[in-house]
Amino acid sequence: MTELSGNCLIGQSGGPATVVNASVAGLITEALNHGCIDEIYGALNGVAGILHEDLIDLAAESQQTIRGLRHTPGAALGSCRAKLKNPQDFDRALEVIKAHNIRYYFHIGDGDAQEFAVKLAELAKAQDYDLRVIGVPKTIDNDLPGTDHSPGYGSAAKFIATTVRELSADAEATAHHDIVTIIEVMGRNTGWLAAAASLAKRRDQPNDPPHLVYVPEVAFSSGKFIDDVRRILKRELHCVIVVGEGLVDTDGNYVAVETTEVGAPAQLGGVGEHLRELVEQQIGAKVRVSRLGVAQRAAAHVASKTDAEEAFLAGQAAVKAAMNGENNRLVTLLRGDGDHYTCETGLTNLAEVVGNVKKLPREWINEDGVSMNFQFFRYATPLIQGELAVPYDNGLPTHVRLHGERVSKLLGGYES
Amino acid sequence: MTELSGNCLIGQSGGPATVVNASVAGLITEALNHGCIDEIYGALNGVAGILHEDLIDLAAESQQTIRGLRHTPGAALGSCRAKLKNPQDFDRALEVIKAHNIRYYFHIGDGDAQEFAVKLAELAKAQDYDLRVIGVPKTIDNDLPGTDHSPGYGSAAKFIATTVRELSADAEATAHHDIVTIIEVMGRNTGWLAAAASLAKRRDQPNDPPHLVYVPEVAFSSGKFIDDVRRILKRELHCVIVVGEGLVDTDGNYVAVETTEVGAPAQLGGVGEHLRELVEQQIGAKVRVSRLGVAQRAAAHVASKTDAEEAFLAGQAAVKAAMNGENNRLVTLLRGDGDHYTCETGLTNLAEVVGNVKKLPREWINEDGVSMNFQFFRYATPLIQGELAVPYDNGLPTHVRLHGERVSKLLGGYES
Repeated sequence: MTELSGNCLIGQSGGPATVVNASVAGLITEALNHGCIDEIYGALNGVAGILHEDLIDLAAESQQTIRGLRHTPGAALGSCRAKLKNPQDFDRALEVIKAHNIRYYFHIGDGDAQEFAVKLAELAKAQDYDLRVIGVPKTIDNDLPGTDHSPGYGSAAKFIATTVRELSADAEATAHHDIVTIIEVMGRNTGWLAAAASLAKRRDQPNDPPHLVYVPEVAFSSGKFIDDVRRILKRELHCVIVVGEGLVDTDGNYVAVETTEVGAPAQLGGVGEHLRELVEQQIGAKVRVSRLGVAQRAAAHVASKTDAEEAFLAGQAAVKAAMNGENNRLVTLLRGDGDHYTCETGLTNLAEVVGNVKKLPREWINEDGVSMNFQFFRYATPLIQGELAVPYDNGLPTHVRLHGERVSKLLGGYES
Repeated sequence: MTELSGNCLIGQSGGPATVVNASVAGLITEALNHGCIDEIYGALNGVAGILHEDLIDLAAESQQTIRGLRHTPGAALGSCRAKLKNPQDFDRALEVIKAHNIRYYFHIGDGDAQEFAVKLAELAKAQDYDLRVIGVPKTIDNDLPGTDHSPGYGSAAKFIATTVRELSADAEATAHHDIVTIIEVMGRNTGWLAAAASLAKRRDQPNDPPHLVYVPEVAFSSGKFIDDVRRILKRELHCVIVVGEGLVDTDGNYVAVETTEVGAPAQLGGVGEHLRELVEQQIGAKVRVSRLGVAQRAAAHVASKTDAEEAFLAGQAAVKAAMNGENNRLVTLLRGDGDHYTCETGLTNLAEVVGNVKKLPREWINEDGVSMNFQFFRYATPLIQGELAVPYDNGLPTHVRLHGERVSKLLGGYES
């Protein structure tokens, strides 16, 4: 393999995740180790930054800032949900990449977002431009196939389990009021995040809250739901329910879809309120609904150290893969076989994760359909271990912002 | 003053607060220092436990458990919102207290909850029963008069400021989308909690999020609101708004009241959704609404060390006051005059806090009505300092539960 000299570019895409900036830090740190990489650029706001040639010089950032990325939520480079459809847009993206002699492109994102990376790699190949494209996985939803788990999931799981445990303590304090607590979590089509709430149970205390966990992998029936809630209220006086936003009924339709503009993709959410109505109307108990919302992907102050370290590692691994001549590949996380949890990185084809979703295995869910068995606990427990050391200043966790020194534009403006 | 020998009883009342159990720990710890206190009892579920003679032996709890109360959210003894109205209920409460030779009653609660303590003290006096009643303040709302601040507020403020800072980082990552982020916080009739979100701003960065803070102390006008949002969107591309649930319009009516049963007290909440509609209809920007919900009073994993220590101190001070012969008094927190923050305890009459609410001073709010000035920052910043050392086990913060050894009942059953 011949050494390929030139610049590298990093882009973030899709919704932010708590540790997504740790992958940026890993990429930059590793890129500095390789002499064939001249400049380390970042694209502002994902693919939008490439199209509009909004690039910044990441090597010019202070070391302090790069270190601080490891505990900064959001997406330091800015993100973007736009999906390029127009072939001219891809041509333009490659034109910008060529103009800046980018030879390595690292794309941090979920399954949807990686479609851009695949198409860019294909276009470069078709135009015989030597570009190595490596994807870095990121999603709190944990639904990427081909990887044991995704950076972002462990921290979201830790936040959810922590919060469910705390809200349950509050609910227990008022348990004699016959209160039903409903906690709605994210997870568009999979139950990984809802299942993570089960981690709030103490060891060998299956009756601990959350008492009922509803995941999209198990078709929802309102009759069974009411029976479930009645059973728990009889046993515990109060009932803590966790529900994933993407819950579907026996016909495969979403149980709750928020009203949205005509033609726009379905905006999930509101399933907690839907369950509230069922309980109020059919049982008459008092209900409190909490939606954990964006904090699930932003609560860096309670991030998993394991997750943050793996996100950094995934960034480093992407650069190493590119140095090894890999192209059109996605970094994966591989779990060791031993009893003691270990994790190393691997690679899969980028195209494998586009449009494919990994669901929570049905055999990890108990027969009752509302609780997880030991297989899930064995899987998820290692991912929330350790507390990220977030520096506090004046009582609050600190974040960094990139200085963002602009790279001079070499091309004219662009309207997509 | 003659020494008064007998048992003491602790009750918790009103909604839980993150550090309310630290006051229980302070009470027990101090009570053990005084030989004239024989038994240390707790009433389960507040006044309900007194009426039904559901008492537990707190001295029988392990030291480990009592220490663990300092980082356990909820209300370890159980709480209660019931207000006694029936005179027989008060007679019964005093009957139970006499039967168990209770000579010291410590009541942890907010202003509403302290009404019970006042009436109990008056009844005991009328019946010539030597009982010393001391209240311990507790409310995340921070609306108790007569005290510089209330235990519970600092931790809620720290949680809110932390979360607003994290949600803002997420919002900034997608700022080019022209997104309005609305964060709804608690605070029934005062803006203390909403104002605390301002602490998320970095020092000397007044343009940091949150960009607009709406508090009940400033009458809400939808016209000005839309102008405010337009101004911020022009300057920042995105806009982070924090709003207190108890917002009122120029006529003094709540801006948003959730539908509730006829005759029940108004259930606040939903003001975030109300503002969403205004923005969507009149500006057409995309809006995300987060309601921070019960986590504001339960997020022990991010509790303020200062707050937890003061809650413990308030518990200790209550016992000391009782030992000094005080009765029908509330422990208060007094701030020192120096530049360096100091806090000691004082006492006020219990009746002073019943039905009275301390509002956020108007002169601490800037002329624009949507931001706080240095007087608020000087007041609130010390209250969120320090991180409570919460022990983690298996990736999650640990809580304790009382063993709850029951005290034998001496009276017959009671139906209120």
